Amino acid sequence: MNNRITSLLGVEFPIIQAGMIWCSGWRLAAAVSNAGGLGLIGAGSMYPEILEEQIKKCKAATRNPFGVNVPLLYPGVEELFNIILREEVKIIFTSAGNPAKWTSYLKQRGITVVHVVASLKSAKKCEESGVDAIVAEGFEAGGHNGKEETTTMTLIPLVHAATSLPVIAAGGIATGRSMLAAMALGAEGVQIGSRFIASVESSAHPGFKEKILKAGEGDTLLSLKKIGPVRLLKNRFFDEVQILEDAGATAEELKTLLGNKRAKMGMFEGNLEEGELEIGQVSALIHEIKPAGEIIREIISEYLLALEQLGKI
Amino acid sequence: MNNRITSLLGVEFPIIQAGMIWCSGWRLAAAVSNAGGLGLIGAGSMYPEILEEQIKKCKAATRNPFGVNVPLLYPGVEELFNIILREEVKIIFTSAGNPAKWTSYLKQRGITVVHVVASLKSAKKCEESGVDAIVAEGFEAGGHNGKEETTTMTLIPLVHAATSLPVIAAGGIATGRSMLAAMALGAEGVQIGSRFIASVESSAHPGFKEKILKAGEGDTLLSLKKIGPVRLLKNRFFDEVQILEDAGATAEELKTLLGNKRAKMGMFEGNLEEGELEIGQVSALIHEIKPAGEIIREIISEYLLALEQLGKI
Repeated sequence: MNNRITSLLGVEFPIIQAGMIWCSGWRLAAAVSNAGGLGLIGAGSMYPEILEEQIKKCKAATRNPFGVNVPLLYPGVEELFNIILREEVKIIFTSAGNPAKWTSYLKQRGITVVHVVASLKSAKKCEESGVDAIVAEGFEAGGHNGKEETTTMTLIPLVHAATSLPVIAAGGIATGRSMLAAMALGAEGVQIGSRFIASVESSAHPGFKEKILKAGEGDTLLSLKKIGPVRLLKNRFFDEVQILEDAGATAEELKTLLGNKRAKMGMFEGNLEEGELEIGQVSALIHEIKPAGEIIREIISEYLLALEQLGKI
Repeated sequence: MNNRITSLLGVEFPIIQAGMIWCSGWRLAAAVSNAGGLGLIGAGSMYPEILEEQIKKCKAATRNPFGVNVPLLYPGVEELFNIILREEVKIIFTSAGNPAKWTSYLKQRGITVVHVVASLKSAKKCEESGVDAIVAEGFEAGGHNGKEETTTMTLIPLVHAATSLPVIAAGGIATGRSMLAAMALGAEGVQIGSRFIASVESSAHPGFKEKILKAGEGDTLLSLKKIGPVRLLKNRFFDEVQILEDAGATAEELKTLLGNKRAKMGMFEGNLEEGELEIGQVSALIHEIKPAGEIIREIISEYLLALEQLGKI
């Protein structure tokens, strides 16, 4: 495979493992990069010294390119960037914030910058701020999401038509067939989250991984819309939010219920009822925990087979 | 093109025009069928005598197969079926109801039956009740929708894996690229609604068609969730529903606001602020009103070009 994304990132396959909080340490990133995709360390849940250690370990575990995902809304972002620069990681995915603020700083220092958006409106800002590529993430994706609720099927063509930058599709992608669908819509690569959370190498709590395998249709929903939509797996915490929302709760009341550390509690510590479990709708299609390298090989062979079959209709 | 859907329906291309209330009369159905797709008359908004007249006119306007869409929840369904049988239309799409109730009645009378679902759970009922094919309609689709909020990207692979019946994808499909994406996901055909509402031949009010062209990202949202989710184009009526929902209104209060005839008022009579405007998220990708035949030719040539490009990556 050869296109603008494989060239830009220096990878064999245009498959990026999303840099998800609490689930994406060096083990997962290195396994994905070693298999020909792009692994990302998820800095959003890491103190600076942890990030530094994770990068060092990842460098020791792979000779292939890998990157770091930095959510721009967290405090202390500059310190994280300085560690990444010092450690000479060349690829940064920024998310959850305005790309105008940091992109030129990073570009001047030789970094390849990819920004994650959930709407066409945000995608348009990316082009102006000089990023190298855009991740466009549909409504079906896990975790933080857009108010417009634009699904991958609609968002990718919209972003593709509005920009000359290469587009990486995210949300609802877990298999070779869905990767092919994303490429048909105009994407040049895919970013995959949920499927890699359910991998051997992810740092998600084993209980969370098991819960993903059991998830069926309708078991995730967009929640907390008044304070910023997040797709969650249903559990006791989700139900409590739902009851408040149905009764017309204010943003303040929801923030009080949410509190801090719910995500760590659920995804990393395995408190599956009180914690916040961020996962995509596509969890309904995930039935087995596999090594990340095997996931990539499976996706690529399914992609090629499905493409061949399409040619025969 | 040759697959189970083209064979089942006797069409050149596996493109079905959705039988949408107030927008799908004989003119649209005949234009689609004449161009090699399958046109559907939308019986959901028709009195029996109107349906009879529409079928007669459609038969006079095309020699190709066409069908009728019958929402099963409306009263007087049996009378509609008897008209369709008497007029010797051979294809019926049923929707909004349980396929177990009417499928064997229709199959015994030689009808090809396709049932429309918005969830995997409903899709499984289809196989048991003996339908010939399933339309699986994602969250992004206009009009009535599923509580699970499963998007096309997730729903098609789920339904495809759970049934041996051919699957027709709906929701978010308006172009050749999105048709190709649907086929990559395992569909063998597509059902297209919004794009055909914005066609020359649709019976939608011209004001509604113009409003679709102006719709951008985020201009439709799933509404009325407590009484059965419907995707609506934002207008004054939508805002009123939203205010009530945010304040925690009950199903009864929402039903009172909705009342009767809102759909006819908006989509057919052109009261764009007080009426209910059902349209898909993909309206953000529709920029021109074209003849239905031209839409089909455009979709097919874009499909073939995109497939060729995918083969070259």
